[in-house]
Order: sequence, then structure tokens, then C-alpha cells
Amino acid sequence: MHYKLSGWDDTIAAIATPPGIGAIGVLRISGNKSFDIIQKLFPTKNLKEQPANTLHVGYLKDDKTILDEVVISLFKKPASYTGEDVIEISCHGSPYVQQQVLDALIRNGARLAKAGEFTQRAFLNKKLDLTQAEAVGDLIASNTKASQNAALKNMRGGFSNVLQELREELIKFSSLIELELDFSEEDVEFADRHKFSLLIKNIEVTVSKLLESFKLGNVIKHGVSVAIVGKPNAGKSTLLNTLLNENRAIVSEIAGTTRDTIEEVININGILFRLIDTAGIREHSQDIIENMGVVKSKEKIRQADIVLYLFDVNEMEFEELSKIINEIKKQNSNVITVANKTDAFNQQLNKQFADGIFISAKEGIGIDELKNALFAMAAGSGLNTENVVITNARHYAALAEVAKSLEEIKTGLENNISGDLLAPDIRRCLHYLGEITGEITNEDRLDYIFSKFCIGK
Amino acid sequence: MHYKLSGWDDTIAAIATPPGIGAIGVLRISGNKSFDIIQKLFPTKNLKEQPANTLHVGYLKDDKTILDEVVISLFKKPASYTGEDVIEISCHGSPYVQQQVLDALIRNGARLAKAGEFTQRAFLNKKLDLTQAEAVGDLIASNTKASQNAALKNMRGGFSNVLQELREELIKFSSLIELELDFSEEDVEFADRHKFSLLIKNIEVTVSKLLESFKLGNVIKHGVSVAIVGKPNAGKSTLLNTLLNENRAIVSEIAGTTRDTIEEVININGILFRLIDTAGIREHSQDIIENMGVVKSKEKIRQADIVLYLFDVNEMEFEELSKIINEIKKQNSNVITVANKTDAFNQQLNKQFADGIFISAKEGIGIDELKNALFAMAAGSGLNTENVVITNARHYAALAEVAKSLEEIKTGLENNISGDLLAPDIRRCLHYLGEITGEITNEDRLDYIFSKFCIGK
Repeated sequence: MHYKLSGWDDTIAAIATPPGIGAIGVLRISGNKSFDIIQKLFPTKNLKEQPANTLHVGYLKDDKTILDEVVISLFKKPASYTGEDVIEISCHGSPYVQQQVLDALIRNGARLAKAGEFTQRAFLNKKLDLTQAEAVGDLIASNTKASQNAALKNMRGGFSNVLQELREELIKFSSLIELELDFSEEDVEFADRHKFSLLIKNIEVTVSKLLESFKLGNVIKHGVSVAIVGKPNAGKSTLLNTLLNENRAIVSEIAGTTRDTIEEVININGILFRLIDTAGIREHSQDIIENMGVVKSKEKIRQADIVLYLFDVNEMEFEELSKIINEIKKQNSNVITVANKTDAFNQQLNKQFADGIFISAKEGIGIDELKNALFAMAAGSGLNTENVVITNARHYAALAEVAKSLEEIKTGLENNISGDLLAPDIRRCLHYLGEITGEITNEDRLDYIFSKFCIGK
Repeated sequence: MHYKLSGWDDTIAAIATPPGIGAIGVLRISGNKSFDIIQKLFPTKNLKEQPANTLHVGYLKDDKTILDEVVISLFKKPASYTGEDVIEISCHGSPYVQQQVLDALIRNGARLAKAGEFTQRAFLNKKLDLTQAEAVGDLIASNTKASQNAALKNMRGGFSNVLQELREELIKFSSLIELELDFSEEDVEFADRHKFSLLIKNIEVTVSKLLESFKLGNVIKHGVSVAIVGKPNAGKSTLLNTLLNENRAIVSEIAGTTRDTIEEVININGILFRLIDTAGIREHSQDIIENMGVVKSKEKIRQADIVLYLFDVNEMEFEELSKIINEIKKQNSNVITVANKTDAFNQQLNKQFADGIFISAKEGIGIDELKNALFAMAAGSGLNTENVVITNARHYAALAEVAKSLEEIKTGLENNISGDLLAPDIRRCLHYLGEITGEITNEDRLDYIFSKFCIGK
């Protein structure tokens, strides 16, 4: 069920390329009046008479004043991104010129688009389902191979196709069971309980796989913060350099990135790890954490997703290490213990350290093992970024509700309860499945989802 | 005469939209291999068989990995921006995705474009003359109506058409005079000296108008810095607010803008004035400039294009004012004297202040007069931004050389010197006229001119 949004008959306009100076900048308009509006500004030819998917070069004029020499791209409904008549204007890349063109479009009848409104229209015109629309936003924000893959998979349907199919089968059973309600006094069963039970198990397997993948999806989307903790001479800088030399990530500038605490970013199997070097400020004190040089770092240890405790294997006794790790675990239970400087270690490796990872940051020994450990702790084991993964908290929440209702249905089936008692749980299950793909939704929620997009998309 | 540039047979590629996250990002490739390269990445259809100026939606794939869903714009030679086969790829606006696509283009045979290289090819393929190509760069950098107008006029030919015509007439005379050299012993005159003299005057008028316009062109392009100087209670903040409330300019972020000294920017008749408020630090001292509160401002006074000296008309004696203005003029001769707080001034206005401008910043009195004075001092009187103006220092330098050689030719004509003595000056004149439009140029100079463009243009 799709709600028609207020103001949906308007023609919307926005600058679609990033702000700043570039070679070209693109504006986009969508709506019933797109061709009328552009025609007022483009005297060179009659654009309505031109075929769809064609390009036209000419001057954009606003009341005889030339605004720019532009290339116009024509997309006609329904074969356009939004499903409406869409026109893109490729201008010279001066922010001033683009603003002038936008002003002229608005003076001639367009309205400034809200964030995500083009994609919202695509959704309302059934060009995309909701997970696909959300994937567009994720693709734009993607900054690793893994986040790009996850977004592209979801844009092409991804898990929503699977859910859609399962939901339709569930709807069939649901209507049979609803039918039983009409004959409730006659004690008939139209819905085959065995087949129904198999379907429920099938859905459950799919849903629980997707739920599991959220841990990975979350780190694909948001990255993982790793606080590197250790005494001043443990070799933190060397380790940082060794990791960076191989895997320095290209990270784009994103507004709001908290630069003050982020030190360096590396990419391990498509996941971004933000390495936070907690400076080894040694304060002479009896407190174990203070003494190990992280008195200022308690906060960082608490906030990090993973704590990497690095020590010099030549300078560490098992007892001290245990104490330190216990102290750290009071703040954060995700700790990876890393013994460094194994190249200089002449003794038999102490079995007591065996749950740690042995490396030589200087010689590059054990680094792959360390990276695997980081990836496994961040993403969960047995997962890889090639599978379909849930990256969206909204989907996760809805799937969790689906899982709950599936549990209720299963219990009901095991107890042989009647159709009228099963029906509410089935309806709830259908509702939450439908919410994910946008079959069931409401205007406020849609506005919220699309408001997180950028303007012009 | 056009030189063929090294590597001009390559196919070049670049991201053409500004860096950062947006709804869409556009990449551009140009060259003989454009279609071959894109075809390797775009399996959906055979693009070579598609007509020029058409749009094609599909997935960009690099060796089976999907990079993005894109819109491809096809432009075929010679009807393209560069005159070569040009393909534009409109991707989702993730910097990461754009970089992936660029990498794929390069792996498949394109070369990363140098700054301005697309426009340079347009010039080399005679799609634009040099002033038009330079105007493209100016349009991209434009941030006021006036700079946009000036750039658009020059893009459409502007003064270069006029110069081109005059140059061609001069070439005719030149060849007649060169012919005289072959018959020098016979003392014939093929070139009508009277008509020639008229042509020279005609060129001179055009060139001197253009030279004059450079002052305006320069401020259109670069803006004008105005140091506002005065005692602490002269009303500088009120004046700044009054000017800003009416005329605050929308200025785009440009890399390298010296934010530390620029306070506020206003737009007067299309020219940007950067108002630098020299804080009124009063230091008790005998030095007049120190005493008037600008001890820290001498440097700013020297560097500013215009100094606006503001004083409270109720608190100023003519003698003191004269001393202050004299002191300021030692640093900078472009001073505008402004008497403020005339609303509270009950006496007959002192004739001795008559060369100043009388305002009340509080009441908004005299502000237009002040703005006119600023514009006139910046741009020269009698000029307006609707005329064709020279904004480019390279053109100014060449025109100055043209003017010099015209002077020589005129003197020669007045003295009835023979063709063989006139010929070198005419050749020099032709050379510099040709340099402006790019008829005469060399590879190094071209590289320099285009290197100031942004990548992707």
C-alpha cells in the first residue's frame, strides 16, 4: 500500500553534484512540468518534440540573460530514475552559475527538492522497493569494496527478493487460515499444517542468516574502532606503520567524521578499521592501568569496538599481563592480546601467552594472523563480505520482530493451536516482512528514511 | 598555426564533478579509444552502434564485478566538446565508486587527463579559440553576475571576434607592404597609406578601449580589498552591518582564499568587495596613525586596494583629519574619506570636509553614494560591467604590446617611411594580436595556460 505524499504533483529541482568548483555541475528536475520549465529557459529547440534519452547542447537563457552553455539530458516517464519526466542540466562547474540556474528553475515553477526526494519518488512510482532505495543512499556513502558490494547487491534486489517470495507464500497460508476462521465451528483445516511448518522453518533460516549478517553489515557500513593500548615501548608506532604500509585505506572526506580521535584508517577485507593510538603517557602510580600508560585512555578503551593490547614479549611476565588484561576487560570485553618483538625473543615461546597473537611488527611477522583476528572479532567468524548482508538498522529491527513472530507461530503449531489463534502472529510476521521492502509503511516513516539522503538524490 | 601536442592521440579520462559526496558524480573520457574502452565495461549494449547524443542506462562491470549502475552519454566527433569521441559516465555520487570507475577506465586503456586537457583538445581541434577556452576557466571560477557575464561573452567570441577581423584586414595590408619590398627599387606603393592609417587608428581605438577595461576586468575577476580604518567609535561595525545587510555576497568556497584577513564580502554592481575591518586598537602614543587606532593596520592599509577612512563628523577637526589622511596616503593613495553620524550633526556641514562622503551608517543615509564611490575607484569611471571587458592578464600584456607596435606604425606613417621599415612593426603587431586568440602560440605556453584549469575540464 503506497501513500501519496503531499506535494507530490510538484516539479522538484536540485543541484545533484557535490558543492564546490569542478569542471561540470549537474542539476536535476523531475515532475510533470519538467519539460515546460526547461523550455522557458532553453530557446534553442523544442525539447518536448525530442525523443527520450537524448542530449541537447545550447544556451540556457533567463529572460534574455545567458546563464550558461549547457548539455540537457532528457528522460521521459515512466523510463526515468523517478518514473516522472526527468531533465538533467550539465552546466559549467561554478557554484555561482549552478545557483543561478537553480534560481531560474525555481522562478519558472520548480520547487527545491527535499533531501532524498528524487529517490522517494522512484519508490512511490514503484521503480525501486524500499530496500533498493535505501541501498542507493548506502552506495553513495560507500567507501570500501565491501560497502560498495553490499549496496549494489541490495540495489539490485538483494535479500528483499527472497523475503518478497517467502512473504507471498506466507500470504497464501495466511488466507487459508483466515478462511478457517469463517468455518471455525466446523473444525476444518484448509491450511496443511505440515507444509506450513516447513515454510515457517524456511523463513526462519533465511531470517536468522540475515540477522547474523548484521554484525558484519554494521561494520561494513560504519567501520570498526580499534584502540591500540600498550606500554610506551611496546612498539605501537611500528605496528601502526606496518599495518598502514600495506593497507592504508583511501577514505573520502565525510562531514562529521570525528577527526580528533581518529588516527589512521586501514582496510582489512573490505572493512575499515580506525586505529586509535592511545599515547603511552606513563604516570608513576600504583594503579595498574595508569602504570601501563593508559590513564588517559580509559575512555577510549570503553568507546572502542576492539582493544588491541600490545606488549613486548621480552619484557612481560604472565602474571602482570593477566592483571592488565583483566583491568582492560573491566572496560571492554573485546580484547586482542598481541605479543610483539618475537624476532628478539630467544626463549621458547611461553605457553602461558598462548591465547595471544605473536608478531614482530618490525619484521612483519604474524601481521596477517593479527588482521584475521581483527576481522573475525569485528565481523564474526564464518562470514564474508561476498554474501548478502544486512547493513541497515531498520531492516535489522524489522527482521528481529519477524523472528519473534516466527517463534510464536512455531510454538503454536507444535501445540496444535487453532487457526484463529495462529492468525494474529502470522499477520504480525507479514507486517514486519512488508515493512522491510516498503509494502507496508507510512508517510512519516518514509519521510524520515529519505531525509537521510543528500539533496539531489 | 597549431602545434600537435605530445600524447594527443591518447584517450584521456577524469572525474569532472567536484570532489566529495553528492547525488551523482560524472566522469568523462575523450579520444579515439573512448568507445572501445567504455564497451569493455558496459556489456548491456553495443554503444558504437548507438547514435550520437544519446543516453544509455546500465551496469558498469569490471571483469564481472559490478562497479555501479550508470547513465552513459555519447558524443561523437567532431560534434563534441573536445572535437573527439567523448563519453560521460554519470555514477552514483560516492567518491569511492567514482575512483573505482576511473581506475577501471585507466586499466582499460585511458590515461588520466591533465588539468584543462579536455579544453586544450577543444582548442587544438579548433572548437574554441584561445580566449574562448580561457573564458571556460573563468566561467567555472565566476562568483558574481559580472564575472559570469564577462566569461560568457568571451566564451561566445567576445572581443576576439573583433580582434580577429581587424587582424585579417591588417594581414591584407601587411602582404601588400611585403609585396612592396620585392619592388623596393622601383619605389611603388601597393598599400594605400591613407586607408592603412585609418585601419591603424581603428585598431588603436579598439585596443585602447580593451586596455582601459582591464582595470574593471581585473576587479571583476579578483575582487577589491577595502581596509576600513578609523578610530574605535567612528562606527565601523555599524557601517559594515549596513553594507552587509543589503549586499551580502554569496561567495563560494575557493581553495586558497585568505580567510584570515577577509572579514566580509559584499557585491556592488557585480564586483566583489572584501571589507577588512582593521580593529581599532587604541594605543596611547604620539604617532598619528598609532593614535587613530591603526598601529597594527599599516600593513593592511598598504596591501588594500582601497582604504576607507571613517570618522565621526561630530568629533573631528579639519586639521586632525588632514594629518590622518596625509599619513594614510603615505601608505596607500586610494583613500575614500567618509564622515559618519551625520544624523547627529546639528551644525552646518563643514565645507572643509567637502571632498569626503557624508553618511549615517545608523540611518542608512549616503550609503548608495559610498557604494558608487567604491565602484568608481575600483573600476574606473564611465565603465560598466555590461561591456566587453578584458579580465585576463595574458590578454592585457599582449594588447599592451599591440598598442606599442601601433604607436610605432603610426609614427612611421606620419614620417612617410618606406614599406621595408614599416614591415617589422606590422609583423610584431600581427604577432601579438594572434597570440591573444591563439593563432600564434607554442606548446609550452599552451600547457601553462591550460594547467590553470581544473582536472576534468
